[in-house]
Amino acid sequence: MKINAFAAAKKRAPLAPWSFETKELRCQECVVRVLACGICHSDVHMIDNDWMMSQYPLVPGHEIVGEVMEVGSGVSHIKAGDRVGIGWQKSACMHCDDCLHGNENLCDHNVPTIVGNHGGFADHVVTDSRFVFKIPDGLETPSVGPLLCGGITVFSALHYAGMTSGQRVGIIGVGGLGHMAVQFASKMGNHVTAFTTSSDKAEFAANLGAHDAVVVTGNTFSHAPAKKLDILLSTIPAPLDLDNYINLLNSDGTLCYVGIGEASANVPLLPLLQKRRRVMASPIGGRGMIRHMLDVADAHGVAPIVELFPFDKVNEAIDKVRNNTIRYRAVLMN
Amino acid sequence: MKINAFAAAKKRAPLAPWSFETKELRCQECVVRVLACGICHSDVHMIDNDWMMSQYPLVPGHEIVGEVMEVGSGVSHIKAGDRVGIGWQKSACMHCDDCLHGNENLCDHNVPTIVGNHGGFADHVVTDSRFVFKIPDGLETPSVGPLLCGGITVFSALHYAGMTSGQRVGIIGVGGLGHMAVQFASKMGNHVTAFTTSSDKAEFAANLGAHDAVVVTGNTFSHAPAKKLDILLSTIPAPLDLDNYINLLNSDGTLCYVGIGEASANVPLLPLLQKRRRVMASPIGGRGMIRHMLDVADAHGVAPIVELFPFDKVNEAIDKVRNNTIRYRAVLMN
Repeated sequence: MKINAFAAAKKRAPLAPWSFETKELRCQECVVRVLACGICHSDVHMIDNDWMMSQYPLVPGHEIVGEVMEVGSGVSHIKAGDRVGIGWQKSACMHCDDCLHGNENLCDHNVPTIVGNHGGFADHVVTDSRFVFKIPDGLETPSVGPLLCGGITVFSALHYAGMTSGQRVGIIGVGGLGHMAVQFASKMGNHVTAFTTSSDKAEFAANLGAHDAVVVTGNTFSHAPAKKLDILLSTIPAPLDLDNYINLLNSDGTLCYVGIGEASANVPLLPLLQKRRRVMASPIGGRGMIRHMLDVADAHGVAPIVELFPFDKVNEAIDKVRNNTIRYRAVLMN
Repeated sequence: MKINAFAAAKKRAPLAPWSFETKELRCQECVVRVLACGICHSDVHMIDNDWMMSQYPLVPGHEIVGEVMEVGSGVSHIKAGDRVGIGWQKSACMHCDDCLHGNENLCDHNVPTIVGNHGGFADHVVTDSRFVFKIPDGLETPSVGPLLCGGITVFSALHYAGMTSGQRVGIIGVGGLGHMAVQFASKMGNHVTAFTTSSDKAEFAANLGAHDAVVVTGNTFSHAPAKKLDILLSTIPAPLDLDNYINLLNSDGTLCYVGIGEASANVPLLPLLQKRRRVMASPIGGRGMIRHMLDVADAHGVAPIVELFPFDKVNEAIDKVRNNTIRYRAVLMN
């Protein structure tokens, strides 16, 4: 079939209409008509070839919500008419230890939706149905895309950092990822402290469910949290001064990176040792975790705050993402 | 009562006989006649005031095995005649969250046996009975002291790093701590890879239960382990090149420091993120963990390899510890 998309013809180029023909549908594949697609910083990095793995013409878009139009002969978990979502990951080997443990996101052979494939800035997407997820009815279409990328990233990280409920959780950064992390952590029954460089965002964080907000100015905190934190999740793509943050952690506390702003972290070992603290990092989430995240978002009313754009304003939307003026996730609507 | 001890009169001084009078026995205290006492690098650090918290005259010794002579009115779990052990920790506040969770070793108010108190290089010790542990009959007296310091340190760290059985565990360093870690990990049903700078120790590690030994020369490994490791325990008091080690970890794998040879670790974040790996550090162990460790050592025949010295050869023994020529733990016998 012919797919009408928006593509970057070369590195850093503005997107322009472009169409291409798909191959014959394979047994595990499906065709999804795109209803909405979020715009993520990763799309901008891919347009700009920041990670040296972009292929042009490049069709961005990996926060896709759509309607199933057709499924291959081997597909049984979704059918035509279903509302579904597709996130960062397009496929995995499905046979390694990681895949068999439900950690497809850690698979050495994982393939991203927009690396060597065409993404969701298009009228349709043809993709591996095993990474296509039915969306609970309670979730609104514009909300789903950001949940499938930033949402699963923070949700899975909080899970593997050991979050249950009744804990104290710190979220560093209240942006695209952080504003979903604050909601997940607080709505799942935890006391949440948001760390933000902007005093404006302190009130915003409170509205999202944060119980406390620490305003960070340089290396200085407006105040220390009243109690030590069980988990600290860093969502900012900037270097983190661990000397400041590690001592805020409780015994057996974990600091988890989902945003990475430096090649390596300088981890002070004595504070780690004295309270048996941990430092970890976590990427997106496996398929089981994605389905669980969607259920939790549905049950607890977790939703990203989005700015909507028609598809023909894609370049305007990308510019706002690029300039960090989106509050808090951009979504293209067909 | 009068206690006859060996004490350092000042920083770096050789030990000499010294005696002191104890105060009246308090309700939680007990008197232990010392049968044996291990010598640990920490004793040397305390003699040398390396940690700026030594008080002189200083009586070292925190790997104590002895016989209970007398107990205070509030003591019920041990009685005169019992063979008991005393390790690094003398007391804790017993009321903070850490203490109530069985993590007395993480208590902000923990007091070491030889900081502000006199240790086990003596004929008797008077101490808080709550940190005095009955020794299983199967454990031989010379083995117990090192188990109560280095042994519990590696045992608790392996536990909190997530060790169960059927895993792949790497032990970095086959010295005083490492040679006990190899035994615990292998005898508890794990596949153990020892990392050592000495090819001599590779065979030694095999005799202790290691299934593989990697000889480390500078930053080069003799070979890579056949499979990724679930846990890496670093027992060496020297800087660790994490760029080399992190990629040996499996998904969700943990590298845990018990030896610290640098103020901070340079942790590469991308390898951490890609496989959701962790870095942590762990100090000694809580009381419940100590009792469990003693039971496991008894059940599985875990024992340190020791060199025995009579108490009047204490300075000779300390010199061997100081010069790293002890194989693998020094123990003074009364």
